[in-house]
Amino acid sequence: MISKNQISFVHSLADKKFRLKYNCFVAEGNKIAVEILNSNWAIEQVFATNDFVEKNIFKFDKNKITIVSKSEIERLSQLSTPTDAIVVAKIPPKNIPDFNLQNWSLALDNIQDPGNLGSIIRTADWFGISQVFLSLECADVFNPKTIQATMGSFLRVKTISIDLEELLNQNKFAQICAAVMNGQNIFTTKIEKSGLMILGNEGKGVSKNLLEKINLPITILGKGNAESLNVGVAAGIICSIISAK
Amino acid sequence: MISKNQISFVHSLADKKFRLKYNCFVAEGNKIAVEILNSNWAIEQVFATNDFVEKNIFKFDKNKITIVSKSEIERLSQLSTPTDAIVVAKIPPKNIPDFNLQNWSLALDNIQDPGNLGSIIRTADWFGISQVFLSLECADVFNPKTIQATMGSFLRVKTISIDLEELLNQNKFAQICAAVMNGQNIFTTKIEKSGLMILGNEGKGVSKNLLEKINLPITILGKGNAESLNVGVAAGIICSIISAK
Repeated sequence: MISKNQISFVHSLADKKFRLKYNCFVAEGNKIAVEILNSNWAIEQVFATNDFVEKNIFKFDKNKITIVSKSEIERLSQLSTPTDAIVVAKIPPKNIPDFNLQNWSLALDNIQDPGNLGSIIRTADWFGISQVFLSLECADVFNPKTIQATMGSFLRVKTISIDLEELLNQNKFAQICAAVMNGQNIFTTKIEKSGLMILGNEGKGVSKNLLEKINLPITILGKGNAESLNVGVAAGIICSIISAK
Repeated sequence: MISKNQISFVHSLADKKFRLKYNCFVAEGNKIAVEILNSNWAIEQVFATNDFVEKNIFKFDKNKITIVSKSEIERLSQLSTPTDAIVVAKIPPKNIPDFNLQNWSLALDNIQDPGNLGSIIRTADWFGISQVFLSLECADVFNPKTIQATMGSFLRVKTISIDLEELLNQNKFAQICAAVMNGQNIFTTKIEKSGLMILGNEGKGVSKNLLEKINLPITILGKGNAESLNVGVAAGIICSIISAK
């Protein structure tokens, strides 16, 4: 039996203020739950059906699991189609790690939609891009919609919140590109074996102060009439090209 | 001043049952509103702020515009950030047109998420792919979330609801491809100048009965650890390749 307090605790984590207060976030869905429970991430609490617990073997302390019914999961869930497990995990400490400069990294400048952010992290993981820098204004990685859209890739792709202008000032990268409307054709221009690829805000694109510091503006040439591509789709096309270098 | 009846009419169009009953759909947002009001699509009703009407010139009968306040738009809107105009337009008649066989077309098999569907239509428009076949189980093009995600591209890309198995049986296409997990590497395999590219359901992929009728299974090779790509992202990468043929 879950308590009202437990329900309001889980619901509160949809809000960044409470994620920061409790230093916790919610990961929902069977696949994501299995992945995080078998990772080395710190787990706070798990709500899962008996069926889910019996079917899966976990690395972590099973005493943290509360067995709940399907209808209790529905009360806890923030998905329109609730699944069998909701994990409350600890937000990992923000150590700024040594940067990996051997491969391409992404830098996301003020991406606002949590679904776009999650989808980009999932795409980076697919193409073996292990490092994504996030400007300080980006949507939150630990927003439940972001976590959901990553399909578990948040466990593998390193996300680093950082002032992008300062990062560019450090001048560490072999090539610094940004996706813009009138740049070089990415399908034909020379792309280095490693570097930093900046993708901008859904409406406004890459900030002017960052564009002043790049080596190569790139564009995904189309031949139709749409005004722009969704940033998650653009990221997919760009990652398919840079990851092949 | 808008009436309760007007509000409940607009809200009802989020539901396919009422879209079919009234033969109408909702297009929200300034950019989409301007595009549809300047197109030759039949307009039923427009709710817009005075500011929006003064700033824009439209091709159609202005008597159909109800001037509303920002707070009235909020009551009508289904977006989290309402804009200045909500258009109720007629769903066009479903004439099955002559197919364009000179270029690549997409076929979407049971795509469930309206956002994914809209994003794929927007991507097709960007790459000049003018024809998208939808299986009869696909999400609805006229769902407000789909319309929103197309960013207006639903006005330019022809969508045709059709039994995909029957379409394949007609054997019209130079090459019939499907995106699968273990196919030929799309970056290196021979792609014809025209054909049909089938993209499958978010969870289950392309249906077995369709896979039996294709010429070429293709895969977007990754080198990371994600289990799959979002179908909208996959569509973007695939369209960037087939549209270059």
